[in-house]
Amino acid sequence: MYTAEYLEKFTRNVFEKMGCSPEDAKMATDVFIAAELRGYSSHGMIRIKDYFQLWQAKRINVSPDIKIVHESPSTAVVDGDGAIGMIAATKSMEIAIEKAKTAGTGWVSTRGSNHFGIAGYYSMMALEHDMIGICMTIANPLVAPTFSVSQMLGTNPIAVAVPAGIHPPFVADFSTTPIARGKLAVAGKMGESVPLGYVQDAEGTPSTNPDILKEGGSMLTLGGTREQGGHKGYCMSAIVDIFSAVLSGANFGPFCPPSVAYLPVKEEKVGEGTGHFFGAMRIDAFQTPDAFKSQMDKWIETFRAAKPAKGHDRVLIPGDPERENEERISKEGINVLVPVQKEMKEIADELGIEFDYQG
Amino acid sequence: MYTAEYLEKFTRNVFEKMGCSPEDAKMATDVFIAAELRGYSSHGMIRIKDYFQLWQAKRINVSPDIKIVHESPSTAVVDGDGAIGMIAATKSMEIAIEKAKTAGTGWVSTRGSNHFGIAGYYSMMALEHDMIGICMTIANPLVAPTFSVSQMLGTNPIAVAVPAGIHPPFVADFSTTPIARGKLAVAGKMGESVPLGYVQDAEGTPSTNPDILKEGGSMLTLGGTREQGGHKGYCMSAIVDIFSAVLSGANFGPFCPPSVAYLPVKEEKVGEGTGHFFGAMRIDAFQTPDAFKSQMDKWIETFRAAKPAKGHDRVLIPGDPERENEERISKEGINVLVPVQKEMKEIADELGIEFDYQG
Repeated sequence: MYTAEYLEKFTRNVFEKMGCSPEDAKMATDVFIAAELRGYSSHGMIRIKDYFQLWQAKRINVSPDIKIVHESPSTAVVDGDGAIGMIAATKSMEIAIEKAKTAGTGWVSTRGSNHFGIAGYYSMMALEHDMIGICMTIANPLVAPTFSVSQMLGTNPIAVAVPAGIHPPFVADFSTTPIARGKLAVAGKMGESVPLGYVQDAEGTPSTNPDILKEGGSMLTLGGTREQGGHKGYCMSAIVDIFSAVLSGANFGPFCPPSVAYLPVKEEKVGEGTGHFFGAMRIDAFQTPDAFKSQMDKWIETFRAAKPAKGHDRVLIPGDPERENEERISKEGINVLVPVQKEMKEIADELGIEFDYQG
Repeated sequence: MYTAEYLEKFTRNVFEKMGCSPEDAKMATDVFIAAELRGYSSHGMIRIKDYFQLWQAKRINVSPDIKIVHESPSTAVVDGDGAIGMIAATKSMEIAIEKAKTAGTGWVSTRGSNHFGIAGYYSMMALEHDMIGICMTIANPLVAPTFSVSQMLGTNPIAVAVPAGIHPPFVADFSTTPIARGKLAVAGKMGESVPLGYVQDAEGTPSTNPDILKEGGSMLTLGGTREQGGHKGYCMSAIVDIFSAVLSGANFGPFCPPSVAYLPVKEEKVGEGTGHFFGAMRIDAFQTPDAFKSQMDKWIETFRAAKPAKGHDRVLIPGDPERENEERISKEGINVLVPVQKEMKEIADELGIEFDYQG
């Protein structure tokens, strides 16, 4: 077990040694630690090696010139200049929040970025400003559009954070696929099958084999098959792709650059790097914050009071599981898997810094 | 078969006889006819009776004072004053478009409205202004949140329309449930069962009985069960509910007023009428329109070129099925079911206007 403080210091150290400014290193680190605390270890320490290797391969820019390249009172396109995704994304969301302060809402589409960790983090940046926060991103193409077998879209997550009054905020953070890519990998390693609706084989026949992606298979969109509404998940994923990568001028859909160094840079480019989309809506651009928050409290209480299905003892509000993880993990500490610890130790040795390998 | 022109004239006549101004009658009628032409007959002539009966019951306002009650440069809250949903919605989307002209984007949350027909119609209003259009609405609560058996949410659709260059626009218009309510009703009438994933019984056990809603059952969110990602559909539906009904001050979730007169007005109110949410984003607030449209063309061509799954001959772009319906139905005419013709004849008789009952 590690404390958040320890991993925070270690991660900052890694990014500083890679050449990031102390501010940028902290900015990136905050997202990694938030992922671990909120229970998304798939987006935490396990990803440091990816960034380390992308840096070694000179595929990320540790002193980027992140800037607005086009704007209106409520919008901006940000060029991330090849930055670490967490840095381009944090700065983009800050711009969305600044725009909202004067225009009521702010919307930023970002190109030239990289993998940015958990979408929920950026949406939640809006909360302390009494704003609703929105964030989307494209990701490695593994998902087939309805009726197709081509890997054209990522798991393309959407996050929306809404402030409440006496209750904790509503924070929805979800991919537009039935499950995350990482869960398929785990099932594959365990030799388990997965339910129908997650993946299909190279011909488009539904499959229960979690390793089918290695044999030309693909993931399905949220909803799964057409019969189950998978075409609506395709719509959602396509909207995320267009807002993040076409509006910004990034590499949309199948052209999304790989977030890992072991996959080659794609030969065909249709834009700059990876794309994200951010939104901030000032609550008082719609209502007085007190009226809104009191109504959100009533919303939360209404949904918490829904009758649980047989075998369940409560109905959750989006954000509950992650907040409960955060409370528990902050107390108990962060469990880093031994193979990930090994990677961290290797990175530490290469960069000449300390890492407490616990094994 | 009826021509669009004939049904347009009839519908305008009905609304004018109900007391709408000629402008308002035309505004409402346009949405009904668009629904028929785009193949959504579930939102076309079949709904005229609902509005007629709501009017008889004095539950809609045919001379509403629709107005902005709160605003910022890029936002507004509109009070529909009990208007026909199509009128409140069209005026709200017009406000979003006007806001976008100066602020870059415009966002309107509307309360005090009623059932508004097809969400896609309003999102498409943005296209001729070189804007992306967005529309969402709440609807009759029939859907249970994940792990619950309470009917708390509507089929809560989302529509997004994006202009392209040489290709027709991208128009996604989809409910956040696996299927529409109307399809359940059809299966019930035919005595057919439905696939698992659509509905559950009063205890929360998955069911194949399309009539289970009459026995305390409920519809599931997009994704279906928790295992298949239904909690992500719950997130989507909740976001639609909050943007449409909490931001505006309408009756959120289970308090959404019924869109039919045979269901009683709810005793408990938490706001004003039904709520919708509208967005307009000026393309040139992000990029030059030519650059964006040429990239959207490339996006459309890329996804059209995806390899079809076995048994399919092409991959669709959101909006293709509706556009093809529109081309076909404009030529062939609009088929109105005999029971719906009977309703239209009855309404015509009561209002003292003509209707060509074909039987």
